[in-house]
Amino acid sequence: MRFDTIAFDADDTLWHSESVYAAAQEEYRRLLAPYAEVETVNRVLHQTEMRNLPSYGYGIKGFALSMIEAALELSERRIRGDELQRVLDLAKQMLNTEVELLEGVAEVIAQLATTYPLLLITKGDLIHQENKIEQSGLKPYFRSIEIVADKTPQSYAALLARHHIEPARFLMIGNSLRSDILPVLAIGGEAVHVPYAITWVHEHAVVPPEQQGRYHELEHLGQLPALLEGIQKRS
Amino acid sequence: MRFDTIAFDADDTLWHSESVYAAAQEEYRRLLAPYAEVETVNRVLHQTEMRNLPSYGYGIKGFALSMIEAALELSERRIRGDELQRVLDLAKQMLNTEVELLEGVAEVIAQLATTYPLLLITKGDLIHQENKIEQSGLKPYFRSIEIVADKTPQSYAALLARHHIEPARFLMIGNSLRSDILPVLAIGGEAVHVPYAITWVHEHAVVPPEQQGRYHELEHLGQLPALLEGIQKRS
Repeated sequence: MRFDTIAFDADDTLWHSESVYAAAQEEYRRLLAPYAEVETVNRVLHQTEMRNLPSYGYGIKGFALSMIEAALELSERRIRGDELQRVLDLAKQMLNTEVELLEGVAEVIAQLATTYPLLLITKGDLIHQENKIEQSGLKPYFRSIEIVADKTPQSYAALLARHHIEPARFLMIGNSLRSDILPVLAIGGEAVHVPYAITWVHEHAVVPPEQQGRYHELEHLGQLPALLEGIQKRS
Repeated sequence: MRFDTIAFDADDTLWHSESVYAAAQEEYRRLLAPYAEVETVNRVLHQTEMRNLPSYGYGIKGFALSMIEAALELSERRIRGDELQRVLDLAKQMLNTEVELLEGVAEVIAQLATTYPLLLITKGDLIHQENKIEQSGLKPYFRSIEIVADKTPQSYAALLARHHIEPARFLMIGNSLRSDILPVLAIGGEAVHVPYAITWVHEHAVVPPEQQGRYHELEHLGQLPALLEGIQKRS
């Protein structure tokens, strides 16, 4: 076989996540409407998130704290207690949103697990990711589940070393060029990009031309088995 | 040797952590003083933390969200924006507090690492724990660093299985009976309790009499090498 291990990102690759953030931000903009223009709300919230990323990391708890901080800034501290309570409620709603698998995911994962050892590699809040994995029903198909603080060439290299996987025989599948694709290509792995309907600005990126031979793009995960078959024949 | 692997908890075992929470709560009580009695502040904050634990998990980000939620409740939503900003600032101060090793830790860890493979097993926010481990200077001494959502007999059993460690040949050292000691004794491991000056109410517990043969208690980590020597001779 061409690959020893196939790994999947989770949020927006196996199940919806960015749509949960988008819905919360829609509601947040409505809440802040008395204090600031939509564009200002978007800009200040994004700047706050980016500024806090090194200390908060990824995930809903850090996002919630940034929503509160931005709300105080946007309202010049005039926002009312009941309005801030709504922001907290939004965060809890997000955390309690039921996991909804993307189309074709359940079938493809179950099918590939019969042939390949599968890994799940995700970033975000530890407990929220664990809860979602539990809820997804996909846990038994994965040999190992790795929740990392950030996805960099270094963090992938360490993870592969720990699992004794040769990068050239490793395939990563995910929706984020920045987190799932580029760092894997950089260490010599192969990668499949399956874009999600919405992409967080922070995750935008471009694949370097010299690495495009190990790069594939699909419209949805249902096309993965056919792509793998093609790769097997080629090699 | 009696043990194949020795594992350490991190917060309040290797470095100060509860003291950071205690200082923040002191400041929080001062902030809330215009709205509620000290006892009420303590009670509502603790109840809020406990209620949120299943969805927020351990760590400062969840604690910060609970501080904000409790402040809104305690003030009947009357708390001012600039006061809430102080709560956010408190959370950031906590995240930015420099790691301060407990007495004797650096020496004991460096010494034991020459004889035993060491693991670090900690719970809390992924990125904050990683930042603290990096800062501590102790990272090179640990064969593996495990950040888990919760410390239960199941999570220890899974971790030991993954590392091919027999529970009977595993020693865990930590300050929390509830998280570091009882679950390890429950799966047949041996454990050393090194209490920290302050214990979070949530972590209180009692060792079952039938497991006390595999249980030890020390006043500080500097006593660990002598304890290990004694155990070696006994077995």
